[in-house]
Amino acid sequence: MSKLPAAVAERFAAGELIAAIAQDAESKDVLMLAWMNEESLNLTLETKRATYWSRSRNSLWVKGETSGHFQDVLSLSFDCDSDSILLLVNQTGAACHTGERSCFHSEILIP
Amino acid sequence: MSKLPAAVAERFAAGELIAAIAQDAESKDVLMLAWMNEESLNLTLETKRATYWSRSRNSLWVKGETSGHFQDVLSLSFDCDSDSILLLVNQTGAACHTGERSCFHSEILIP
Repeated sequence: MSKLPAAVAERFAAGELIAAIAQDAESKDVLMLAWMNEESLNLTLETKRATYWSRSRNSLWVKGETSGHFQDVLSLSFDCDSDSILLLVNQTGAACHTGERSCFHSEILIP
Repeated sequence: MSKLPAAVAERFAAGELIAAIAQDAESKDVLMLAWMNEESLNLTLETKRATYWSRSRNSLWVKGETSGHFQDVLSLSFDCDSDSILLLVNQTGAACHTGERSCFHSEILIP
């Protein structure tokens, strides 16, 4: 696999997770935020399908494995302090388990 | 302030932070990911300027306070499991402390 930035490798070695943002490559809508450990990042790179670490199930989570709503990954970029990663994806179907295209559909109003 | 979703209020009450994604309202580029506690979210809503919780400094962080690179917030949306929030912002200057427009500028290549 690609060589990880040292700061990212250190976070993984310390058992930390990285926040992973999936953005629709076409519309540029932010679709969801999930988490990655080293194994899920490696699998994402190998398969080119977004694979996360489910904090609630404590297991690997190939996005779309049960729903068919896969995310084909076009590019991955770490941020400057290496605690998050941005994935540009081609999203099949809805990203959200509610059926909404994006998980960010609960707007709060600015007073 | 606006009423928070119950799941968000619960997270804050448990001392958890929410991952906050800032997206450029115009270009739709994802600019950065930072963290919010309840106080920083309340300040963001009151001032309409993105205010985060700095995990490294353990203190409130008004984005742009020292750099002048403020983020004027146009909308805020929680995700479906209430552990992250998406901010659409008008970004003054660069979002990243390196001078890059976005913090996500370290692309890793898919093999």
